[in-house]
Amino acid sequence: MNFRAFREEDLAALVDEVRPLASEGKVATYIPELARGNPESLAVAAVDGKGSEVAAGDRDLRFTMQSISKVVSLAVALSEFGEKAVFGRVGMDPTADPFNSVMRLEMVRPHRPQNPLINAGAIVVDSMLLARGPEEAFHSIREMARRMTGNPQLRENEAVYLSEKRTGDRNRSLAYFLKSVKTIRGDVEEILDVYFRQCSLEVTVSDLAVLAGTLAFDGKNPLTGETVLPGKICRILRALMATCGLYDGSGEFAVRVGIPAKSGVGGGIVASVPGVMGISVCGPALDHQGNSIAGIALLERLSDRFGLRVL
Amino acid sequence: MNFRAFREEDLAALVDEVRPLASEGKVATYIPELARGNPESLAVAAVDGKGSEVAAGDRDLRFTMQSISKVVSLAVALSEFGEKAVFGRVGMDPTADPFNSVMRLEMVRPHRPQNPLINAGAIVVDSMLLARGPEEAFHSIREMARRMTGNPQLRENEAVYLSEKRTGDRNRSLAYFLKSVKTIRGDVEEILDVYFRQCSLEVTVSDLAVLAGTLAFDGKNPLTGETVLPGKICRILRALMATCGLYDGSGEFAVRVGIPAKSGVGGGIVASVPGVMGISVCGPALDHQGNSIAGIALLERLSDRFGLRVL
Amino acid sequence: MNFRAFREEDLAALVDEVRPLASEGKVATYIPELARGNPESLAVAAVDGKGSEVAAGDRDLRFTMQSISKVVSLAVALSEFGEKAVFGRVGMDPTADPFNSVMRLEMVRPHRPQNPLINAGAIVVDSMLLARGPEEAFHSIREMARRMTGNPQLRENEAVYLSEKRTGDRNRSLAYFLKSVKTIRGDVEEILDVYFRQCSLEVTVSDLAVLAGTLAFDGKNPLTGETVLPGKICRILRALMATCGLYDGSGEFAVRVGIPAKSGVGGGIVASVPGVMGISVCGPALDHQGNSIAGIALLERLSDRFGLRVL
Amino acid sequence: MNFRAFREEDLAALVDEVRPLASEGKVATYIPELARGNPESLAVAAVDGKGSEVAAGDRDLRFTMQSISKVVSLAVALSEFGEKAVFGRVGMDPTADPFNSVMRLEMVRPHRPQNPLINAGAIVVDSMLLARGPEEAFHSIREMARRMTGNPQLRENEAVYLSEKRTGDRNRSLAYFLKSVKTIRGDVEEILDVYFRQCSLEVTVSDLAVLAGTLAFDGKNPLTGETVLPGKICRILRALMATCGLYDGSGEFAVRVGIPAKSGVGGGIVASVPGVMGISVCGPALDHQGNSIAGIALLERLSDRFGLRVL
Repeated sequence: MNFRAFREEDLAALVDEVRPLASEGKVATYIPELARGNPESLAVAAVDGKGSEVAAGDRDLRFTMQSISKVVSLAVALSEFGEKAVFGRVGMDPTADPFNSVMRLEMVRPHRPQNPLINAGAIVVDSMLLARGPEEAFHSIREMARRMTGNPQLRENEAVYLSEKRTGDRNRSLAYFLKSVKTIRGDVEEILDVYFRQCSLEVTVSDLAVLAGTLAFDGKNPLTGETVLPGKICRILRALMATCGLYDGSGEFAVRVGIPAKSGVGGGIVASVPGVMGISVCGPALDHQGNSIAGIALLERLSDRFGLRVL
Repeated sequence: MNFRAFREEDLAALVDEVRPLASEGKVATYIPELARGNPESLAVAAVDGKGSEVAAGDRDLRFTMQSISKVVSLAVALSEFGEKAVFGRVGMDPTADPFNSVMRLEMVRPHRPQNPLINAGAIVVDSMLLARGPEEAFHSIREMARRMTGNPQLRENEAVYLSEKRTGDRNRSLAYFLKSVKTIRGDVEEILDVYFRQCSLEVTVSDLAVLAGTLAFDGKNPLTGETVLPGKICRILRALMATCGLYDGSGEFAVRVGIPAKSGVGGGIVASVPGVMGISVCGPALDHQGNSIAGIALLERLSDRFGLRVL
Repeated sequence: MNFRAFREEDLAALVDEVRPLASEGKVATYIPELARGNPESLAVAAVDGKGSEVAAGDRDLRFTMQSISKVVSLAVALSEFGEKAVFGRVGMDPTADPFNSVMRLEMVRPHRPQNPLINAGAIVVDSMLLARGPEEAFHSIREMARRMTGNPQLRENEAVYLSEKRTGDRNRSLAYFLKSVKTIRGDVEEILDVYFRQCSLEVTVSDLAVLAGTLAFDGKNPLTGETVLPGKICRILRALMATCGLYDGSGEFAVRVGIPAKSGVGGGIVASVPGVMGISVCGPALDHQGNSIAGIALLERLSDRFGLRVL
Repeated sequence: MNFRAFREEDLAALVDEVRPLASEGKVATYIPELARGNPESLAVAAVDGKGSEVAAGDRDLRFTMQSISKVVSLAVALSEFGEKAVFGRVGMDPTADPFNSVMRLEMVRPHRPQNPLINAGAIVVDSMLLARGPEEAFHSIREMARRMTGNPQLRENEAVYLSEKRTGDRNRSLAYFLKSVKTIRGDVEEILDVYFRQCSLEVTVSDLAVLAGTLAFDGKNPLTGETVLPGKICRILRALMATCGLYDGSGEFAVRVGIPAKSGVGGGIVASVPGVMGISVCGPALDHQGNSIAGIALLERLSDRFGLRVL
């Protein structure tokens, strides 16, 4: 793939092409503040190894990272505690259950979340970071997000954070379950506070294209040139994204797009083509699995037309 | 990756290095005939785009394809009926359940197997092929296997076939369940006969390295030069292998190896590096998920040392 | 309760009162031959300790025992092998799963059916009886049914038997699962043949009222005076009927009716008031749990008006 | 059964006979304060329709009601809101799942607890009572418990209440799950506070024998003569106790004892023989299902020797 072939006009045409698909999806409503998102919004950006960006659509759209932040908190945990400690606490295999499912936790022993990209897994990861205290834990995640995006201004959207904190009862159910079986320790509300905060980190597709690029270029941020993460951790993150990144829609995404990616219910998706580029899309209308319906379609066309598929 | 760098001595050294791991696994015993396999056997072969092979270990070891044949029958079904018809009958997403699980079939509606690489999914695929009659169905699979391996002599191991037919009660349970909910039609014993036969197709790592190569080179058999499958179908197969190829161990395999692959309880694994090479290993001692324990370790080292990872 | 108070006119009035409820239910269709039953049929009979009968409605209606026969085969197994042997192979606790569910069998270890009155449990019981050979096994069940009903002519309905044998794929799935986990041994088709045969035993409400009476009077058949079973076994059977007799509707039945009972998808129900009387109803229109909708309503009114409740 | 036959010497002999069984069980440890109970304690009391009591063993033993209080809160809810409203919110059928299971809540739609005697169901009942405010809700339960036991001094054990409140994470998980699916409304901590308080109500076997008697005599307290509940509600409660009263051990209890009963993890059990007597036992050593191991054995012997079985 030659990045130069990748022109803004092409991206803009693709945006126009897939935007109507938004009508088949629905903006997330279980977090009231997210329900205010415009389902028709659609944006895309891509960044190559030198930090050059091409973008199209509603590129100024600001949205919250939501589950995409799980990649960031996992990166922090892997950096701090190492692979062995983290994967002693949470699995690394995909699951057919929805992102907020508690069932398998009860059914299978040890009561360990299937992987760190479903909610239960991310809560376990956050509980590990809490060892430093709640303030420190969140700051380490935000700092990592700032370095991976190259945006030192990155901060949380207070309204979304508060909205999620108020309504996040399923996550409370997961966390208290995990505590009751001693998979996590510590104060549940403190752990969830970190989780709700990281989900509310506000970004644009440009920010996330750089973050995806950092993962694609084995830890080197293509915009700032900073080495943010070791290559090994990026390979782990990309592998988990490839098999678990779109929840129970991960298999179909691999078939249709074939690039390691992670979605969030804010409508964002990051996709990392190893050694080639980082991509991000955002379209708040979601399919029934909680993934951006127009966003996936856009990535599918990008992947097909520019031969980005790695699988 | 430069295939020339990939020398027989290196492979032989890797074989010696990981062979002792076999002692941590167990040869499959639920098919009595498989229980006779030597757990210490280990073989590897790789084939590049021009059909050049490097191999090491017990390269003359003959083993049965078992679940690797699911890729072949799926290739036949996709060729004959198209993507839409096949994925209208079976999903394309990974699952955390074991390969022979019936639970989710009952729990989720529609009662559709999660993907075509678990047993229930492969049985659905075979039930589609049965439309042609049981003889024809099996012949079309064997013929596809012969063309993908470039080995026109490929045939079933009668003893393994009969052993599996005699003891395959879990597969009967799955098939009768699928029939009771009308996910499949037709005679269950006929469908399973095709399934048990395809599982018993006997191969060497050389055969399967070529098969993996056919998938890696978008359908062109690197040994015979024949175009066996359209590129689109190969991309689908590789994507499913990447997310579902090692059953409930697919996520960990993606992290450790990062190459689309499919395993079988005979101890074989095929791994396809798109555009680069096809690889096959065989080691009959399995881990608790039913995957070759030394085989995975060998692929992990190969992938690391020669930079074969695509994720 | 004074049995004399229990007059035919009262029963006839109750039959007229609840017959219209049949329109809210559906005749079982998964066994094609059962689908031919008239949903509006309704019959009731009761027998006291001296063998006096009162009956009303379509008292000549002939129907098949279906799951009611599970009480009979369990009685044979308890007589032959003893409580300890039987409950070493099958549990004695109710379940919220449907009568034909395979899920819990896979989920829980040991893979033991929850109780002998769900299909999986009855298959385990039959597999024990098979020790005597398939002919003998069925004959021992039919003989027990004849002695419990006091009807030496009792025999199977060939058309229903064959219909069920042809279509009983869910039971095959259960049986092959049980075999695959070694909970049962022997030839699955032979075991199921006994099961399908016993389900097809054809009766009237008079027959079953006597059978219910035999259970109510601690094993003494109120019609023939013969002691068919020890009191201990009858107490076990009544307790299981009270907690598991109407599948996942057993709790609601206990609340509404409060008498140990067992239903069958042929529309029949037997209810045993210990020391007082045996009752049977039949109405082929079933609720979603597979129990006679008018039959339950009739028993509820009977129980209320004549103070038959034991709970 | 002639209550006079039921002499203190007989009870004392039975207590001595079964006391050694305690060594096979374990005192509940998940509530730290309960772990301090003496596993060897054992007490029994029975009360007839005239309020005469016979008792034996450690009759002064004070213990907390725990799940036995679910019968009391359900009695309040049925009195206040009626059968229809309550059973529109919670089922009435037994389950094979443990008392604190969340799995089925997620699996089945509507997300309704299987019955009001498992934890999730009792939480739903309490959420209904909360309509009156948390203070009022608890007071109405305590008042009902006082009237059913005839003990106006009945009060909570503060240490147990606080211990449970501190450690009740599984109940929090259940409650937040129920809230997330909108099965309950209101403040989860307030609802659980009522639940933890009612579980901590402290009693003796004399208190609970009277409570069991109130249920046995259709709502008339045999000690005070007060009519505390309508007969209809007592029949519902006894039926639920018969099928769901000992959690996933309810079926085996029906076989062994054959009397409607309810257990608590404090070691207590109440058993109501309709129209005959109320019985209570307490022995803190529990079996793996959370029921008093010596208590069940004592009730089994009582039931056998004095012919108390109603099933």
